[in-house]
Amino acid sequence: MPTTPGGTPLRAATISLPRPPTHDSRQAPFIRSHPDSPSRTRGIRNGTPQRERKPAECSHRNGAAMVTAGVPRTRARPEELWPAGVDDGFAAWFTDRAAATSCQVTRVPLDRLRGWSFDPATGDLKHDSGRFFVIEGLHIRSTYGAVDEWYQPVINQPEIGILGMLVKMVDGVPHCLIQAKAEPGNSRMLQLSPTVQATRSNYTRVHRGARTRYLEYFVNPGTGRVLVDVLQSEQGSWFLRKRNRNMVVLVGDDVPASDQHRWVALHELRRLLRVDGLVNMDARTVLSCLPPTFFPGSRGEPLDEDVAGALIRSVRGWGPVRHDDRSVLSWFTRSKCRHELTAERVPLRGLPGWRYRPQEIVREDGRHFSVVGVDVRMDNREVTRWNQPLLYPHGRGVVAFLVKRIDDVAHLLVQARFQAGLIDAMEMGPTVQCVPQSQPGPLPPFVDQVLTAPPQRVLFDALLAEEGGRFYHTENRYMVVEAGDDVPSEEPEGFRWVTVHQLSMLLRHGYYLNVEARSLLACIHALW
Amino acid sequence: MPTTPGGTPLRAATISLPRPPTHDSRQAPFIRSHPDSPSRTRGIRNGTPQRERKPAECSHRNGAAMVTAGVPRTRARPEELWPAGVDDGFAAWFTDRAAATSCQVTRVPLDRLRGWSFDPATGDLKHDSGRFFVIEGLHIRSTYGAVDEWYQPVINQPEIGILGMLVKMVDGVPHCLIQAKAEPGNSRMLQLSPTVQATRSNYTRVHRGARTRYLEYFVNPGTGRVLVDVLQSEQGSWFLRKRNRNMVVLVGDDVPASDQHRWVALHELRRLLRVDGLVNMDARTVLSCLPPTFFPGSRGEPLDEDVAGALIRSVRGWGPVRHDDRSVLSWFTRSKCRHELTAERVPLRGLPGWRYRPQEIVREDGRHFSVVGVDVRMDNREVTRWNQPLLYPHGRGVVAFLVKRIDDVAHLLVQARFQAGLIDAMEMGPTVQCVPQSQPGPLPPFVDQVLTAPPQRVLFDALLAEEGGRFYHTENRYMVVEAGDDVPSEEPEGFRWVTVHQLSMLLRHGYYLNVEARSLLACIHALW
Repeated sequence: MPTTPGGTPLRAATISLPRPPTHDSRQAPFIRSHPDSPSRTRGIRNGTPQRERKPAECSHRNGAAMVTAGVPRTRARPEELWPAGVDDGFAAWFTDRAAATSCQVTRVPLDRLRGWSFDPATGDLKHDSGRFFVIEGLHIRSTYGAVDEWYQPVINQPEIGILGMLVKMVDGVPHCLIQAKAEPGNSRMLQLSPTVQATRSNYTRVHRGARTRYLEYFVNPGTGRVLVDVLQSEQGSWFLRKRNRNMVVLVGDDVPASDQHRWVALHELRRLLRVDGLVNMDARTVLSCLPPTFFPGSRGEPLDEDVAGALIRSVRGWGPVRHDDRSVLSWFTRSKCRHELTAERVPLRGLPGWRYRPQEIVREDGRHFSVVGVDVRMDNREVTRWNQPLLYPHGRGVVAFLVKRIDDVAHLLVQARFQAGLIDAMEMGPTVQCVPQSQPGPLPPFVDQVLTAPPQRVLFDALLAEEGGRFYHTENRYMVVEAGDDVPSEEPEGFRWVTVHQLSMLLRHGYYLNVEARSLLACIHALW
Repeated sequence: MPTTPGGTPLRAATISLPRPPTHDSRQAPFIRSHPDSPSRTRGIRNGTPQRERKPAECSHRNGAAMVTAGVPRTRARPEELWPAGVDDGFAAWFTDRAAATSCQVTRVPLDRLRGWSFDPATGDLKHDSGRFFVIEGLHIRSTYGAVDEWYQPVINQPEIGILGMLVKMVDGVPHCLIQAKAEPGNSRMLQLSPTVQATRSNYTRVHRGARTRYLEYFVNPGTGRVLVDVLQSEQGSWFLRKRNRNMVVLVGDDVPASDQHRWVALHELRRLLRVDGLVNMDARTVLSCLPPTFFPGSRGEPLDEDVAGALIRSVRGWGPVRHDDRSVLSWFTRSKCRHELTAERVPLRGLPGWRYRPQEIVREDGRHFSVVGVDVRMDNREVTRWNQPLLYPHGRGVVAFLVKRIDDVAHLLVQARFQAGLIDAMEMGPTVQCVPQSQPGPLPPFVDQVLTAPPQRVLFDALLAEEGGRFYHTENRYMVVEAGDDVPSEEPEGFRWVTVHQLSMLLRHGYYLNVEARSLLACIHALW
């Protein structure tokens, strides 16, 4: 096995090895992890071996677990806490940030959320300012998938936020200004986020709190060079037509990091993607949109001579593609036309198939997700105490790309994926994107090939969180798996083998790749 | 002045000269032309000097004018009926098609439309099959434009239709298979449409009529080569999130033309864009999406040495651009974030500010448009008699590009344009897109520069129709005007100078250019 510059085998040094089935909640991704369930009430410790955990920091109450700030949770020896080659300075900074971050999240009944109320006419759950977001009902009819009609709550957040990363060059090496940020829904409280992560209500200060740091570099880039500026969707199963502005701005050498921020080399950030629950969704989607020319060459840590070479050719756009760009676009258009999907907004009150309890709005069969409320106390934020509802997905999803060498170029298998809340109903998703335990009917294609792949074909495997500002304790298992010989180069109609470069080119435009695919595409850059 | 191959000066030979102000309805584009108004009841003749008009063909009843089939309406001498160089065979074919086409459109009260009814709960106007389209209400709130809140009827047509053009090469010259097609809303009944123009309800034969010819080449391209396959929006002021699949498929030499179809050289079709009311909206949007490499070189008819050269460089992507592609995309994204627009579906019944009469649904102040009903009898269609509602815009719009030579490359001034019904609320529109007489408040930027330009700067000027399957008697004035020195290269924030090639590259993707801009972009190809 090739080794890292430090001489340690790469796989052994990461904490994202394929997981054998055990009863540990981290290693059993398909066990529902509810805060009231036994696995949670035991109190999961993130493990901060370097220092004592302060009990006052980052707790979840109301029968839920106490959870420490986001230092990677593991029972491994301290030297295995971070992937090989991670800068000691970074590790120390993050541990300090965890110590300095105080936050407390308590579940509260939905009808007692301060600043929020149910609309008398519709039952929609709204903020008193009329801003931020609304939880309302959605009625979906579709010829796609196993269920042709259903109702669900959905987050309607029409305003466009900014997910912005500042980058600078230091001796020819790109660095990113990341932030250690806590969000109320995070199960590992502290995560790495982009430089700026703010809804329009935040940055226009509807909450009357402090101003958002570094915002001016994105609103008025001035001397900075805009490398990425594109609207991208977010979870189409939970949001109604939500999109955020993904930005990367290249600045000079004169932008200092605040207490909560740190300049990190891009190659180090790519490596940190392998750490469970560390790099947040917003950072992942922004990274995925970086032009491939911006990534420096191989870090000298090829996975395996053939795979690494094939991956680099895929990223760089070298070598043949299975389908040229025009064919890929034509397939995408054709796929959009194959099915019809209508999503109609309806009142949240009386949604067929859903139960309304003080603590939650939940499906009668307990599937998919519920709506819960939290009271949040947090320092280092524009506002230090607030209430809000969150969506609480039940069960852990699998988000996976199958990758295959075709003519010596790595190709990823993307899927034409309908989701009710997407702007145009369909985007390209990863090969597998599902919550196996919530799946109505048989498992979707390729789930088996992903979950039963032998360890040597699992190139990436980490539990990564979805946006903690809207989702409660939501981690999915992100995987990149080399396809076996049982997966041919000929695809079913709903799938296409494409290169990383082809996807990167599409990411100059909005609404081609869904957030799950973008998240996972960022992780591809952890592999070369 | 350079001459055409036939030796006739180009401008004199077309019928799209800049029009002096007169009282003739064709030459006074801002006079409201209502079927009940005096200018209409006089009975406008399209002029078929070659043959007698048969009174049984193509009539509008119910107090409206009798209108002949779409032979270009003009009082010019017969040899001036078609632009120079138009093939005699084409002219004879189109005149024959007009003679062979029989259609009759009669206005009927909305509550007496056969097959359509008002929903008892919402008042929405629906087809009994539940298909085709629904006329419902829309409630718009926006921080963009002069009016911050309004209600309007809107056409909701969630299904995706196909606008498909077959092309083939004959001795290296591209030819298009066009169709002479009548639509109930056309004021000049017969127009040139793409090979296939069918809603999903049409081609899945909800109407139980005949099958759509040539459809198979688009649904299963097989041996054909797909050159264009992209979803594009339609009128965002009148449709709710409507989009159609724009397709161009290159086929071999073995596809014969049906009676209603004809193979026409692409350069001839480009020239026919100059004829008032001839090339329909669907053909224009499909043509606009053709890759610029597909257009053969100059036809030897430059407008003017400098303009033609600058235009060709603009189409081909030669020479410098004022803003690189990344800057244009960033400007587009930033523009989307500058304003908020929410469009909420509401019942059609009781729409504030609208009156409900048997003959129409109309605004209390008479502005913008009304909803009317028609009874249609038409041969040569899948179904030969039906009823339907149509939107009837009041007043004639101006759709114009200002064009400017910047570093010897022609640049078009595009506008970041919000429209309530667009999928993502904003697309790029032409420099000017408005109905001057319906405009609340002062006229938008650049209207004056367009309408008062001296004739030598008016490069294109034709009355072209919007989709006659949904809109009643709707023609807009499409213009391309060379900017004077009073229009600087520095743009206001909502505008950008871009090249034809930059727009063509964006047209590989959906939802960048609105239908008005695409229509007019097709006309640019009539200029070189």
